[in-house]
Amino acid sequence: MADNKKIEIFTNILQRNDQIAELTQMQMTEQGLLSINVMGAPGAGKTSVILSLIKEMTEMKAYVIEGDIESDIDTKKLREQGIETIQINTHGACHLDAPTLAAALQDLRPLQEGVIFIENIGNLVCPAEFQIGEHIKMLVVTVTEGSDKPYKYPLAFEKADIIILNKIDLLPYVDFDENYFMAGVRGLNPEVLVAKVTAKQNMGIKEVAKWIENKTTLISQELYL
Amino acid sequence: MADNKKIEIFTNILQRNDQIAELTQMQMTEQGLLSINVMGAPGAGKTSVILSLIKEMTEMKAYVIEGDIESDIDTKKLREQGIETIQINTHGACHLDAPTLAAALQDLRPLQEGVIFIENIGNLVCPAEFQIGEHIKMLVVTVTEGSDKPYKYPLAFEKADIIILNKIDLLPYVDFDENYFMAGVRGLNPEVLVAKVTAKQNMGIKEVAKWIENKTTLISQELYL
Repeated sequence: MADNKKIEIFTNILQRNDQIAELTQMQMTEQGLLSINVMGAPGAGKTSVILSLIKEMTEMKAYVIEGDIESDIDTKKLREQGIETIQINTHGACHLDAPTLAAALQDLRPLQEGVIFIENIGNLVCPAEFQIGEHIKMLVVTVTEGSDKPYKYPLAFEKADIIILNKIDLLPYVDFDENYFMAGVRGLNPEVLVAKVTAKQNMGIKEVAKWIENKTTLISQELYL
Repeated sequence: MADNKKIEIFTNILQRNDQIAELTQMQMTEQGLLSINVMGAPGAGKTSVILSLIKEMTEMKAYVIEGDIESDIDTKKLREQGIETIQINTHGACHLDAPTLAAALQDLRPLQEGVIFIENIGNLVCPAEFQIGEHIKMLVVTVTEGSDKPYKYPLAFEKADIIILNKIDLLPYVDFDENYFMAGVRGLNPEVLVAKVTAKQNMGIKEVAKWIENKTTLISQELYL
């Protein structure tokens, strides 16, 4: 197959994806539901961040959509805490896409106002390339992954609306160069909020919860329309 | 486009990839060069594992091919140690493929007998799906990523010929359940060697180096043909 044919097919798939993503985002806005696409490498602590944020935001209805290649480990963890959660298993696919999310959302209706966390597949590469219907992209990274990640995986850092630097309790035991990390982040994304947290110990979570609550105010004023 | 057309295109791409991978592997075998596809999530410590192994295997000629989306941070690190290294930047692509590796190998000729480490893109999903011309798949995971990774990313664990469980010096500070982890690994890959190491402190590296040296003996006897 000629290369221009391949490019055409890929462009068509992306265009269709983006149209559905836009529609999903509009529907969420109309519902007064802030949708957050949570991205990060395997083991970055995406589920722990989501769990600690929901515990903090007691006034707000929260939903979770759990994206995993296989397993429902995280969904069980969230449901045990009484959180309404839908599992998506991609069986191999390395990221969520807009049609998959739109289908999963059907299982959550009727939706109330609040916030919905969509935990993407653990992967610092592919999820950043696809809109799925989110208002906000939240990137979770850890000090154990090393300070060179913005330089090696720039797209995820460039597109993030908020970056959670997780597991900072492990700082004394790893050689994480915060200045080097922040220089990389700022080169790609000058204004983004970088929040230092240890989700499992609830450290730094309050600030992030406040930031999200402010964003939901914008949604309820339909400023994301 | 109909789904069966999409599947046909994907199958063709995979077939072409696998043919080139097979050819590359044969050429490596003829050269007496053991080729190791090093896979793992971002920040798992792939470069540190490679570096500590090469330092241990002083008797053997070693090459590295560094796969990164962007940057040449790791290549610089390896060249500083006098290691012959070629950089591949995929500019977005989430894994290495056989044609890309075959092209990069041209820059390393003439090759001597020994071992070549091919560091794949930091990603626990896509690299496991593609043969690139390797004799051995080495998976690097860490205790900081959590003990549920075999259940969530089964393909990489299933296909690995050796699993490096890295950063075990951090065990006291994280809640890593080794029994749960090993049960997951054994369910997918009953015989695979799981080596506990801390690459940056050179802990556990000697055993892995011995295992590789044994494999190179097989190559020099052309038992991989």
